[in-house]
Amino acid sequence: MSETELRVADDDSQLDADDRLRPEFVDAVLDAVEAGHAEEARALVEPLHPADIADLFELTPEDRRAALAAALADLLDADVFAEMNDYVREDVIDTLDARQVADIASELDTDDAVAIIEDLDADEQREVLRAMEPDDRAAIEEALSYPEESAGRLMQRELIAVPEHWTIGDTIDFLRGSEELTTDFWEVFVVDPAHRPVGTVALSWILRTPRSVAIADVMQREQTLIPVDMDQEEVALRFQKYALISAAVVDASGRLVGMITVDDVVHIIQEEAGEDTLKLAGAGDGDINEPIAVTVRTRVAWLVVNLGATMLSASVVGLFQGEIARFALLAALMPIVSALGGNAGTQTLAVVVRALATNQLTSSNTARMLFREFRVAIFNGAALGTVGALGSYVILGNAGLSTVFALSMIFNSIVAGLVGVVVPVALDKANVDPAVSSAVFVTTITDVMGFFSFLGLATLWGLGH
Amino acid sequence: MSETELRVADDDSQLDADDRLRPEFVDAVLDAVEAGHAEEARALVEPLHPADIADLFELTPEDRRAALAAALADLLDADVFAEMNDYVREDVIDTLDARQVADIASELDTDDAVAIIEDLDADEQREVLRAMEPDDRAAIEEALSYPEESAGRLMQRELIAVPEHWTIGDTIDFLRGSEELTTDFWEVFVVDPAHRPVGTVALSWILRTPRSVAIADVMQREQTLIPVDMDQEEVALRFQKYALISAAVVDASGRLVGMITVDDVVHIIQEEAGEDTLKLAGAGDGDINEPIAVTVRTRVAWLVVNLGATMLSASVVGLFQGEIARFALLAALMPIVSALGGNAGTQTLAVVVRALATNQLTSSNTARMLFREFRVAIFNGAALGTVGALGSYVILGNAGLSTVFALSMIFNSIVAGLVGVVVPVALDKANVDPAVSSAVFVTTITDVMGFFSFLGLATLWGLGH
Repeated sequence: MSETELRVADDDSQLDADDRLRPEFVDAVLDAVEAGHAEEARALVEPLHPADIADLFELTPEDRRAALAAALADLLDADVFAEMNDYVREDVIDTLDARQVADIASELDTDDAVAIIEDLDADEQREVLRAMEPDDRAAIEEALSYPEESAGRLMQRELIAVPEHWTIGDTIDFLRGSEELTTDFWEVFVVDPAHRPVGTVALSWILRTPRSVAIADVMQREQTLIPVDMDQEEVALRFQKYALISAAVVDASGRLVGMITVDDVVHIIQEEAGEDTLKLAGAGDGDINEPIAVTVRTRVAWLVVNLGATMLSASVVGLFQGEIARFALLAALMPIVSALGGNAGTQTLAVVVRALATNQLTSSNTARMLFREFRVAIFNGAALGTVGALGSYVILGNAGLSTVFALSMIFNSIVAGLVGVVVPVALDKANVDPAVSSAVFVTTITDVMGFFSFLGLATLWGLGH
Repeated sequence: MSETELRVADDDSQLDADDRLRPEFVDAVLDAVEAGHAEEARALVEPLHPADIADLFELTPEDRRAALAAALADLLDADVFAEMNDYVREDVIDTLDARQVADIASELDTDDAVAIIEDLDADEQREVLRAMEPDDRAAIEEALSYPEESAGRLMQRELIAVPEHWTIGDTIDFLRGSEELTTDFWEVFVVDPAHRPVGTVALSWILRTPRSVAIADVMQREQTLIPVDMDQEEVALRFQKYALISAAVVDASGRLVGMITVDDVVHIIQEEAGEDTLKLAGAGDGDINEPIAVTVRTRVAWLVVNLGATMLSASVVGLFQGEIARFALLAALMPIVSALGGNAGTQTLAVVVRALATNQLTSSNTARMLFREFRVAIFNGAALGTVGALGSYVILGNAGLSTVFALSMIFNSIVAGLVGVVVPVALDKANVDPAVSSAVFVTTITDVMGFFSFLGLATLWGLGH
């Protein structure tokens, strides 16, 4: 195997087969730092990619990060900070003075610099900005004037824009002549005299077209423009839908103000797609590096709401105390009916929330989706009801109980399928994030209907007498 | 506003503010098709981006897709199929003959052609391949020889590779001279005589470097190579971690066999990140276009497993029938204790599953994570226990019952926090996907421990007497 392959091969000494830092490696670095051998720690870390150095900090316990940062000071360049988890970065940035932070931010593209500076306190932010060059400062201050999580925060100002009347040759000469263009770019934007984008040219087209051809003749006129105030989630969906590599960002008057590249969007796609899991569970950001007080607060709020909801379903059980006292077996079987409803409802909910998030479920197909889930629920309810009825009959030998058990399972399965669609769709229409709020409604309804249908049918059947 | 902006602006007549096709537009097209006005339907659809035409088919009910495909035959080009959902594509492909499918596949890059052909039945596959040009066929047959969801399926063979001894000028001349290179590319790969990659050059570097410079002097030697048999999820993580635009794919002997570009990976990142939500809920692929029989089968399997698990916890309740018969209020409160545990466990589980999937939780920080969740669980358990105890005391006025209620909630919260970490981490170590199998273990444990601790403490306290 050649040397270049070895760098990424699985027998690389710092990384395991999944590209994660080996725990022995992390321990070796931290031990060297603790023993005061900063030199040794630096030698170990030096060969790492910036993304892996960032990971090293994330894997280091909070109380040892300052010492690690001090030991590795020379290696902590802008690229490492750009790759770091927000909370961990804040930790490490806290160990630096404003001058150092300003130097790091100056080396980065606007979007990465903004990511570092936006998390600072107002005081620190002012100090860092004051320590920066006026040009860099102005760019960052402008970016900070856009709402959080908007295209304006995500874009970089560094881009290549050329006038319509240029030729391919003009463009290549311009690029060769500009020493300052240190950033990577994949497309050139063509603008009109008012600096409004009129087309884009992929670099591969520039390279393959004779110098004399006018750029306006090879540019692609169909472009996807991103309004500067667009939410980053919408930006990500647009990049994904139209398979973009980069896109022009325009202000309200249509002027080109920045560029977003796909590598900045990949993180967002991953985060936005993954956060539904966390939201459905009521786990907030679910970042394992967030301060524990934030975690407790987020989760307690959700648990209290759920506690209230379960108390509601408990009160349904309370209505049937007489029947339960006479026939305590009801208390053993009733949680099965509500759990089945909860599980079935969660299945439907997960599918619907994903379909809403990816724009696959729209008003055009909601009715079809509802009917689809209704049919699935009937099948599933019948299957589970049969299994449950036979199982309970074999164990308990009470035909009436087993019949009531099966009927309430079928009923609750249908309820689960319907509310699993209706609740998130209704919340989405009301502009409430369905991933955050649906679960508690759906499980409360399936709990209440589960208890009520089972205990109610049992009462009608005379099981408690 | 200029014309180009209007194409993507929110007042565009076919799309709503979220880039989704408006239901009125979908209806207008389908009505035209039904009325036999194919011409009118084509006129409506013609201005759409291929990704939106693909969406139109996804939003069309299954039984009307064939008629739509027939009416829009001229507009159904390769790009539309490349953007279409797998199940919907199969539907539409079924309406075409092998010759037509072969023509479409021939126009696509290998990866997109493979995506279409890999879903066909073996017979259809053979027929389509036979109808293709030998070159195209060979490329696709080779791709099909790699495992599903591997880099070999994902890569395209169309790429630019140049020898080390070339200059920038040689490279530009080569690109200008090659008429056939219709695909987009963003980097050029430099290979040694054995066709093994030794470096990459971003196109922006080629454009900005004088013609006389040797390519070996500007190429980036540090490259991230993708083994051809690597799983697509690993490929996606690697793209994300190292912010790649494209990457070389190498075979076992290190030779360059293909290229993966970020736009192909974006779909995977989105799918892989989103599928944890579906897996945790036991909803399988959760694709709203999958055949209903597949949906029923996937979900029933999960529900039956959960039914078994709830029967286990029901049997714990059964042990305390005597106490419940004497004091039926226990039956009303016990689901609250188990639900709290289930909710708290699911929160921890969601966080841990995300952290495992994004390589943030490794052996280096598992112990720290466990301790972190333990502390969160104590706080949350104490808070919820206090609220629950006060609430139940106000309503029921039984100090003993409220004490037992609070103690069992604290206990179950701690159990939930611990199993929420231990179960997914242990499954991950055993190479079982924690997103698929964790939930049933965690909720079963919190159910059993919830019922057992509450009813057990109630018995010890003598509440049933």
